[in-house]
Amino acid sequence: MKPLLALYEKDQPFKWQQLNPARFEHHEDWFKAINPNGQVPALVDAGKVITESTVICEYLEDQYPTAVSLRPADAFDRAQMRVWTKWVDEYFCWCLSTIGWERVIKPMARALSDADFEEHVRKIPIPEQQTKWRNARNGFPQAVLDEEMRKIGVSFRKLEARLAQCTWLAGEQYTLADICNYAIAIDAPMIFPELANTRYTPHLVAWLERMDARPAVKRMMADCKLEFTPQKAAG
Amino acid sequence: MKPLLALYEKDQPFKWQQLNPARFEHHEDWFKAINPNGQVPALVDAGKVITESTVICEYLEDQYPTAVSLRPADAFDRAQMRVWTKWVDEYFCWCLSTIGWERVIKPMARALSDADFEEHVRKIPIPEQQTKWRNARNGFPQAVLDEEMRKIGVSFRKLEARLAQCTWLAGEQYTLADICNYAIAIDAPMIFPELANTRYTPHLVAWLERMDARPAVKRMMADCKLEFTPQKAAG
Repeated sequence: MKPLLALYEKDQPFKWQQLNPARFEHHEDWFKAINPNGQVPALVDAGKVITESTVICEYLEDQYPTAVSLRPADAFDRAQMRVWTKWVDEYFCWCLSTIGWERVIKPMARALSDADFEEHVRKIPIPEQQTKWRNARNGFPQAVLDEEMRKIGVSFRKLEARLAQCTWLAGEQYTLADICNYAIAIDAPMIFPELANTRYTPHLVAWLERMDARPAVKRMMADCKLEFTPQKAAG
Repeated sequence: MKPLLALYEKDQPFKWQQLNPARFEHHEDWFKAINPNGQVPALVDAGKVITESTVICEYLEDQYPTAVSLRPADAFDRAQMRVWTKWVDEYFCWCLSTIGWERVIKPMARALSDADFEEHVRKIPIPEQQTKWRNARNGFPQAVLDEEMRKIGVSFRKLEARLAQCTWLAGEQYTLADICNYAIAIDAPMIFPELANTRYTPHLVAWLERMDARPAVKRMMADCKLEFTPQKAAG
């Protein structure tokens, strides 16, 4: 969703193709020819492939410096933006991801026969991803799930504290920091009502509502069926 | 070393203060007033604090666009640079780090009495870092060390494959991708002679030699005593 929303905010034309993880489309040869890691998203622009969602977002700003800028002009504010996008990639997305895998990928993987499952796993190019599929099928240990839930609570409280101080995560300007965090936190009050709600995280909830109300978000939601995101599926 | 080398390459004046991890200086109150996470590096510029080594490097380019540019002008090349700096932060630095902790932090932590150790751990603001200190003192399980060694091998082979194609990691221009990878790989042939050597990773070794020969690297090494980096200490 990160590059998708950046494209909508910047109003750039593009052709979008969604892959179905239930059919392991991102591990098919035609997609691995685009991204050898077999991971979404990938942007093909002028025949060149750019991978990694946060890197794609920065690329869009570098390559298409339109009137709508999603990066602060001030170098210090830009650094704050990057601390927030980096935190998503190194901490926030991972705890949510494990819970999503437990709730969505586990039943998907268990619905397959052993032979079919192994055939799919063989097509996954990254060893760590193979391990994650196997762990998801086995079910993550409760201690792992408990630790990830702790980190989710830490994450929501961190966002709440920041959004009590600023309108947007990098300060007073809407930036890639908001886009990258929104892509992960979007359904937090629905999936984790005990951790993200109007009583405990009012500023986080209000920020999510400000995000939901943005014209670009509304257009994206109307155009794109995003039901395969783990967050949506987990809900 | 990342921001330090970027500052030397850009020939910007700065005052440098090294902290001694053996005395837990980065967990002292005066430093936590600068970076509440109690982690180095931190850059103080015009009274503002910028943290996270890779973010600081990008900040230096944004704030000081000198004749020496450490980022490609082309947006696609810049994205490649960011894929490489991101990979350092999310994969490469962690496997090296665990081995460094096992070899350097473990004896350091074991040299303390239980009471002194607990007193130091209490001052560490990040729970995951507290856990890492405890794990290091206990000694990492052999399965963890084996997996990290596997990843170190993967990392060196990945760098070798790239450097067989290009002079520098982001292409034909020397960039932050080289600086960020050098900071981690600098002593690879000395610490892991079985994995990084002229026979198995000749292009990686040649790139390290090109890095070592850069005037900015030579000036940095002459000026700064870097003996407290885990890599140096592990050697």
